[in-house]
Amino acid sequence: MMTVMEQMGKNAKSAAAVLSVAGDKKETALNAVADALEDNIDKIIKENDVDLKNGEEGGLTQSLLDRLRLTPERIKSMADGVRYVAASNDPVGQVISGNKLKNGLEVKKIRVPLGVIGIIFEARPNVTADAAALCLKSGNAVILRGGKEAINSNTVIAEIMRQAVEKSGLPADCIQLVADTTRQSSVELMNLSDYLDVLIPRGGAGLIKAVVENSHVPVIQTGVGNCHAYVDSDADIHMAADIIYNAKTSRPSVCNALETVLIHKDIAEKALPVIKARLDEKNVEIRGCDKTKAILGHDVVTAVEDDWEKEFLDYIIAVKVVDSMDEAIAHIRKYSSGHSEVIITKSYENANKFTSQVDSAAVYVNASTRFTDGGEFGMGAEIGISTQKLHARGPMGLNELTSMKFIICGNGQVR
Amino acid sequence: MMTVMEQMGKNAKSAAAVLSVAGDKKETALNAVADALEDNIDKIIKENDVDLKNGEEGGLTQSLLDRLRLTPERIKSMADGVRYVAASNDPVGQVISGNKLKNGLEVKKIRVPLGVIGIIFEARPNVTADAAALCLKSGNAVILRGGKEAINSNTVIAEIMRQAVEKSGLPADCIQLVADTTRQSSVELMNLSDYLDVLIPRGGAGLIKAVVENSHVPVIQTGVGNCHAYVDSDADIHMAADIIYNAKTSRPSVCNALETVLIHKDIAEKALPVIKARLDEKNVEIRGCDKTKAILGHDVVTAVEDDWEKEFLDYIIAVKVVDSMDEAIAHIRKYSSGHSEVIITKSYENANKFTSQVDSAAVYVNASTRFTDGGEFGMGAEIGISTQKLHARGPMGLNELTSMKFIICGNGQVR
Repeated sequence: MMTVMEQMGKNAKSAAAVLSVAGDKKETALNAVADALEDNIDKIIKENDVDLKNGEEGGLTQSLLDRLRLTPERIKSMADGVRYVAASNDPVGQVISGNKLKNGLEVKKIRVPLGVIGIIFEARPNVTADAAALCLKSGNAVILRGGKEAINSNTVIAEIMRQAVEKSGLPADCIQLVADTTRQSSVELMNLSDYLDVLIPRGGAGLIKAVVENSHVPVIQTGVGNCHAYVDSDADIHMAADIIYNAKTSRPSVCNALETVLIHKDIAEKALPVIKARLDEKNVEIRGCDKTKAILGHDVVTAVEDDWEKEFLDYIIAVKVVDSMDEAIAHIRKYSSGHSEVIITKSYENANKFTSQVDSAAVYVNASTRFTDGGEFGMGAEIGISTQKLHARGPMGLNELTSMKFIICGNGQVR
Repeated sequence: MMTVMEQMGKNAKSAAAVLSVAGDKKETALNAVADALEDNIDKIIKENDVDLKNGEEGGLTQSLLDRLRLTPERIKSMADGVRYVAASNDPVGQVISGNKLKNGLEVKKIRVPLGVIGIIFEARPNVTADAAALCLKSGNAVILRGGKEAINSNTVIAEIMRQAVEKSGLPADCIQLVADTTRQSSVELMNLSDYLDVLIPRGGAGLIKAVVENSHVPVIQTGVGNCHAYVDSDADIHMAADIIYNAKTSRPSVCNALETVLIHKDIAEKALPVIKARLDEKNVEIRGCDKTKAILGHDVVTAVEDDWEKEFLDYIIAVKVVDSMDEAIAHIRKYSSGHSEVIITKSYENANKFTSQVDSAAVYVNASTRFTDGGEFGMGAEIGISTQKLHARGPMGLNELTSMKFIICGNGQVR
């Protein structure tokens, strides 16, 4: 007999076959989903309140509660996100490349859906709508497995979406949510290779690591962002302070937020007090190396090894004084999760060296790491930021949720 | 203490760092490799003879011995292949896309090497040179683990290449061959996730399956080709016979060779004898369904379930009469390895339906499946044919051996 999860996989595969040739119906369905989300704001808020109450009682941090919280504005923004995806160009059928060979064969490479996508995510209920919309628009069925913290919000959002999809004439099973939020359901998804084409974990480092190590389904790693800023010896100090302030404090709970500052020794004494003054506006805790402490004084916590490795996701930042850009690059190579890094510099040579030698998904010169985002990059909504090298790297939008196939037309050619 | 394999991984990683910024030196090194291969034809043939002798004594089939055999012509062709790769455009640094955002940020996505590539392959010693050349040109270090049948050929080829690479000023460890050909070394490679960025198995179905199921390193599946031809009710019978003859017999031991013919019932009686007459020229064994036997008579072997699933890699073909194109598509969905399929038809509608509903890497209309090849498609030399949906699908050339990164240049932008 089939398990519940296998049955979900089978249902998803059937839905995916319909979706792969659904054409315009996908746009209609997603617009209906967006309307339904707005029509049900009160209902969603009510269930979200249950999750928030449970979260407060369960001792979630303010940062995590922020990720969990839905407001009427956030739900409207979710719905707008779905409409934006609905109106995007359909990636399916797009000709990626093509040519006519000397023998007369016409070869074209076109985009096709991946098939069935599994998504394991943590306490951000907006992921439910975002991810489902992106998967559906790119012709993929999706199985969502959210965290227990958001189960009430996720359940109501998924149900609203499924009803809207079905009313629009597509199978409700284009979008499925796993009811079981225990570890067991994650393990089952990781073994669902007969039905799942790819598994995307979205969440903290622990979740991603567990999925990467244990999944038998191909995985795309997303989201862990231990991001670094390197302040070069000749940097504009106020630009450096502005970028660090923005990258650390504009939304500390997200993956493109800054976690570590590396600063050249020749500028540290002048720049660190200016940077600290900006960070003090938001009471950011600084964990510094000995040299940082010598400059900034006793309210700096001593950084330990763990502080270089960690994604704080909070108003905390690690600071290290380095002797050279090479030391900064070596530090980034050692500790970075490969998400986003920035150099603040006036030097053309150093900017080029940094961008060529730092091997992360997004490497910046003189701009905040917070821009690493599908929307900001003009790719539309994103399913996550890939920090791996296969298939997709950096923000993943609709195109990154597709595969390809070659179609070759001839009139009897043999080789 | 490090194992031998870990040490190889570490050496590869160091070599990869040099290779990633090696620019033109890669072309120089590969041309030196090609010259060295031609200068050492006798030496290579001598070692290949040892492998062939061992293979004959060990009872390898003619088909496998053909894959193993190196002749002066084949070695020259290997060297030419390396020169061709050397002269190809360097994929590293290529700007894939880019734009200037409203806020002034300049975003570009460029190709970067994957890093370190592991390749596990079976008894085709030409893979050693092909794969090493492609990896080196795309800026990746490679660890090659060939089969025991070709170990003498592989060892001499790898040593010649390493010396040529080193003489050209690049690290010899850009190319490494694993000396141990026991199962143990494959297992160690599959666990080398600290050093390997991707693992590519090249070989038979058993090898691929074992790697996909057991690897902790991301895998690209290549090569298993259970390829199908569907002969539509209105097909040009002689075109069908020519395509089937070519796809089956021009080189039966390769992955794009044809394995199964599905033929519409309305044309079977007229077409099958014509097709059989062509296949008889090469004494191809036919394993047919009952209807096929009824038409072709007693020298057709009765097909069993296993015959639909199998990649024969030999002068054997399975034949089934189907009631409709839908039945043919369903059969392909069930049994295909997702490599290459062809419809022979005069119908515009059926050609479109077949290419849109058959979900394989390469889908043909009226041409031999034997064209599924990087060189034939104008992509240059190939490392293999991907039959998976992530990262690359179909022939994988230099571009498919790269990852990407975003470089974002600003002048103080914050979000």
